[in-house]
This record gives sequence, structure tokens and C-alpha cells, in this order.
Amino acid sequence: MTRPFNFSAGPANLPEEVLQQAASEMLDWHGSGMSVMEMSHRGKEFISICEQAEADFRELMAIPEDFSILFMQGGGLAENAIVPLNLSRGESADFVVSGSWSDKSQKEARKYCDVQIAASSEDSGYTSLAPAASWQLRPNARYVHICTNETINGVEFHELPDLKALGSNAPLVIDFSSHVASRPVDWSRVGLAFGGAQKNLGPAGVTLVVVRKDLLGHALPICPSAFNYKTVADNESMYNTPPTYAIYIAGLTFQWLKRQKEGQATGIAAIELRNQAKAQRLYDAIDHSSLYMNKVDKACRSRMNVPFLLRDESRNDAFLAGAKARGLLQLKGHKSVGGMRASIYNAMPMAGVEALVSYLQEFEKSHA
Amino acid sequence: MTRPFNFSAGPANLPEEVLQQAASEMLDWHGSGMSVMEMSHRGKEFISICEQAEADFRELMAIPEDFSILFMQGGGLAENAIVPLNLSRGESADFVVSGSWSDKSQKEARKYCDVQIAASSEDSGYTSLAPAASWQLRPNARYVHICTNETINGVEFHELPDLKALGSNAPLVIDFSSHVASRPVDWSRVGLAFGGAQKNLGPAGVTLVVVRKDLLGHALPICPSAFNYKTVADNESMYNTPPTYAIYIAGLTFQWLKRQKEGQATGIAAIELRNQAKAQRLYDAIDHSSLYMNKVDKACRSRMNVPFLLRDESRNDAFLAGAKARGLLQLKGHKSVGGMRASIYNAMPMAGVEALVSYLQEFEKSHA
Repeated sequence: MTRPFNFSAGPANLPEEVLQQAASEMLDWHGSGMSVMEMSHRGKEFISICEQAEADFRELMAIPEDFSILFMQGGGLAENAIVPLNLSRGESADFVVSGSWSDKSQKEARKYCDVQIAASSEDSGYTSLAPAASWQLRPNARYVHICTNETINGVEFHELPDLKALGSNAPLVIDFSSHVASRPVDWSRVGLAFGGAQKNLGPAGVTLVVVRKDLLGHALPICPSAFNYKTVADNESMYNTPPTYAIYIAGLTFQWLKRQKEGQATGIAAIELRNQAKAQRLYDAIDHSSLYMNKVDKACRSRMNVPFLLRDESRNDAFLAGAKARGLLQLKGHKSVGGMRASIYNAMPMAGVEALVSYLQEFEKSHA
Repeated sequence: MTRPFNFSAGPANLPEEVLQQAASEMLDWHGSGMSVMEMSHRGKEFISICEQAEADFRELMAIPEDFSILFMQGGGLAENAIVPLNLSRGESADFVVSGSWSDKSQKEARKYCDVQIAASSEDSGYTSLAPAASWQLRPNARYVHICTNETINGVEFHELPDLKALGSNAPLVIDFSSHVASRPVDWSRVGLAFGGAQKNLGPAGVTLVVVRKDLLGHALPICPSAFNYKTVADNESMYNTPPTYAIYIAGLTFQWLKRQKEGQATGIAAIELRNQAKAQRLYDAIDHSSLYMNKVDKACRSRMNVPFLLRDESRNDAFLAGAKARGLLQLKGHKSVGGMRASIYNAMPMAGVEALVSYLQEFEKSHA
């Protein structure tokens, strides 16, 4: 069977090998006689799955031992409340607003603490990033929040800010939902990272939180126990019943990531090389066309989410219909931006990008 | 392949037909070319899955139109905070403590409102239920909370209290996590019901909330947006990305439930008959033995969770080893109660109960 190429922004395509393994193990995981869905989360079978997933993610992402890895629920939108409930101490937090997601985050945080916008690129229509040197950081902020990849706007931080060099001792919080595991993370610059799994890691319903251990234990009294990072960490993500099947699929994806190779590179280094090549191929095709355009500054274009417009928007429907007919799915842009968006996460092969580029060129010629 | 019988308290066994269908559709749902895990939650394919699941659950459980059905995340433990965040208005709530779960619920609610214990059966070791006529209900309570099936203690409400007849106008909140869809619910007596899916409905990671619409819109300002019932209802459970695959599996389980028949009965009526017969068979075997015992009052024994002790506890390990060798899995009791526990949810066939009863008798004879 030839599968179509699925450019959904999330939930998004998964590696075919992962889906095949999940299907083959559905009724009997490793001779246990149980589906993973049917296992007690406290039984040795599921504990082994969960521990392996955590160890693989730590290895893949080179996460130091002074960070806890938590499997939680509620996705990025829930974390927008859970982070200030755990880190703000009811005091203050600074936000860099670089698109729709960081804007949602700062609005939600206002329920729990004093929020300052340290920088915003709203004036550019979220097509650029304010240089870190220009950020207005408060010395007493309990944390500084950025969204390192804006799924809707197609803007990505290609380097994490060094807050210490900017004179701040606050921990950096990164929402890395839509590019997690697509590239390495410099953990020396991070206090906490969170991300829903449904872009690069697995099914919707599990959130990964990576938190420096010294930040645990300061939740507000109003923080629900199930969302208190220290409670979750002390119980190894089993305080409440975790989303067991979603963790299992994420674990299979981690093992797939570990198997990836590009030349001498393996794992995240390999997938990063592939992601760079895929993004370059697609942006080049857009930039060299007279029909398509991407408005984002080249310095901060996302490798994962590529929004683009047709200069003649009356052709949008014809474009989408032709794409679907060629097995190129879910290319419609987010309603707040319009036009098209190709999300090219880890599981999208270069062949999918090549097929999209061929279609872009063909459509442009036939509608010239 | 003969599958073993899995008596896990949750996550728990699922109907084999559901698992087979999920496996067969894993790489391509209904010709879409996508796994359900890969679908945008806003695409027409997943919206059709979610709408069908909601409609099937409403039909199965005969839920009136003045109730909203919400698919949420975090399980029962998260709902212990989410309910008071939405319903208490920071004022007061009354709790009936009938076991471990309702006790956890009342402790968590104290973060958000004034809590009174209307009744407790702790003195009996949670082997009985305080009669509703004895409950101390406050006229100003914003709600009254009960856990209608205590998974750990094996205690079940076989009739919902009629709060109006008890002189209270407060809505009744029921935690029906561990017996949802095992029997009908008298919605005229309920304001809100919540339950994790991982006992009777599907995989861990999706929580069903059924809430009377007049109770929406009163969340505390500190309630995270992702857990504000009105926000979730207004967005048809799509305010944040829902746990799409877990909803899909729950939907397959609803369709399986609709297909069930016992004599003239179908759906929930059929599954209730089967659950009654299964429970009676197992309790009879325990009551007629001189080795096993169940301490719970016969009037409130759970049909779903059957805790039992061996009068000679030195035989526990031998009992469990023998059970496992016969394909009778996950029978160890909860650590807080000890002994054994057989959870016999909807997906456990009578054949599984018969196999357990045979083993109980065989083990008793061979160790007499």
C-alpha cells in the first residue's frame, strides 16, 4: 500500500514502521497476552515500557540527570496554566510573544501571576523575532517564557537565548511542542521545556515536560495535585493513571528516532540533517516561484511548519483539490493566517517534500 | 489465539473485537490513508469519529439533551480538582466518603472550597454505605459528591440518592469511573458525572464528563482554561487538542456495547444483565467457600470490583502463581486492602468468571 503524504500540523503523520509495530502488537504485547491498552499502569509490563521510553528520550535528547522527565496530560494549552501554577509563586513572569501560541500562553498566565511582555513581534505580523538583546527582562521574574516554534506562524528560534548573558537569572521556559525531537536542545540554557506529543512524538494525549529538579516543589496551593510537577515527579508520572497507550506509541517513536542515520550522524543529529534538507528544498521552491510566497524572515523560518500563500488567492481551492488528488493531504493553512501550510515533521520523508515541490511547480505552470 | 483473562482494575481488558478492529485500521482508517492518530482533530474524518462517539454514548446511556458530554484529560484524579474549580464557586461542597476514591476527592476539594463530610463509612473499614437518610447535607452546599463505585474497596451504590427527597437542592456529582456504562444511570438525580475511560470504555487518557448545562459557566477565575467545562463545551471538546486515539477506541467500545444482546435486552440493559450474572456467580463462589471471604455488605457489593481475602494469607503467593499459570492475570489486591481483587468489567466474559471460579474451587480443594 502506498500511503499519501500527510502535512497536518498536528496530530500529524507518524513513521509507518511505528504504526505497523503497534498494529502487530495490538492484541498481544511481547507474549503478555495483553494489549498495552489493557495493562495495569503499575504492572511490570507497563512499567518497563514507560521506563524504556523515558530512558530513550533522555538519551536521544541528551537530557542531563538534573532534569526530570514527566509524562503528563492536557497538551500545551493545559501547560499554559500548569507552568505558572508551578513556577510563578504568584509573583511575576516575562513573556516573549512571537506568534499565536506564546500569545495564548501569556494570556493564560495572567490568571496566576504578574505578566510582562518582554518583547513582541506582533507589529511584523509575527514574521520576525525580536533580538534577545532587545528583550525587557525584569530581575525579579520567576521565569521567562518563549515558544521555540510557532506552529501557526512558521517562526522558529534557531538558537536559544542565553538569559544569563542578558543579565537574568530567571529560568527559561520553552514551549517546544511543535519541534521537539527535531533538533538538539542546549539544556544549559533551559529551566523547563514542555510539548504535546502530537506533532513529532506520537498521539495526542500525552505531554512531555522536562524540568530542572531545583524548580520542583514551589507550586501554588491552588495547583491541582495531578498537575503539581513535584507530585508527578515523586510518583514517576504515575500519580494519576498515565495515558499508557500514548506513552507506548511515543516510546516506539523514540526507538525509531534512535535508528535514524544520515551519513555518520544518528538519532537526533541525523533527523536534524534531514529536517534541514527538507526545509531548504521546500523554502527554495517557494522563494523561486512567482506564484507562492512565504513572508517569514529567513533567519527565523521554521523547519517544521511552512506557511505559504498563493499570490492569487482565488486559486486556493483548486490548489487544495489538486493536492488531495495527488495524495498530498491537509495542506490548508490555519484560519488565522490563511493560505497554505505544509508541516514537515520528523516522520515526513524527503520523498513527501519532493512530491509537494513537484506539485507546486506543476500547479504554477498549469495556472500561469 | 486464546487470550488470557485479565482481571486488572484498570487500565483493564477491552473487547477483543475492538482491539482487532483497531489493529486492522491502524494504517488506514476507512480509506483515508491515515491512522486515526495522524488525523487533524479539526479535519472532517476525526470530527465524524468524535461526533459518532458522543452520539453513541448519549444513546447508550440515555443522556438527556440538557446535559453536555465532554471528552477531557487527566482522569478522575484531575477531576477531583476540576469539579470544585467549576462548581464550588469557592463556597461549599458536601462529600459522602465511602472508600479510597471519595476520600481522595474530598481532600483535593479542600483547596477550593469549604468541605463537609456528610457521611463516612470509614468506621466499617469501608465495607458498608451510610444510608442516604443519615447524610448531613447543608442547604447551601454547591454540590454533593459521591463515588458510585469504589474500585479499591469494592463498594457500589445500587441506587442513586434522591437529593431533593432529602431536602437538598444541590446537584449530585457522581464519580462513576469504575462502573460507567455497566448499568443505566438515573439522570434525573444527577448534576454531573465523571469517569476515566480506562475501566469500561477504552484506554487511559480520556475522561468522560456529563454535565447538566445549567451548571456550566461558574468556574473560578483560577480555573485553567483547558479545564473550564464551559470552554470545553463551547468548543465541543476541541478547545485543546483532544486525546484523539483514545476517543476513537472509546467510540469502538460504544459500538461494541450497542451490539450486545441478552435475551430481549440490548446495549446497556444487556450488559447490566450479564454483569449481574457474572458478579453473582463470583460472590456465590466466595461466600460458599471456607477459604475465601469478601467483607463487604451484600447490599452494596460492587459488580465490577470484587476484593477477596484468603483466610490463610500465607497462601497468597501460591494462589497468584497458580492463577497466572492458568491465564488468570492481575488478581493481586490493592496494597491498601491486601488479598486479591477480581475486576470483572464489561469486557470480561462470563467464561472468564467461570474460569476464575473453577480455579478458586480447585485451589481450595488442593490446599484443604
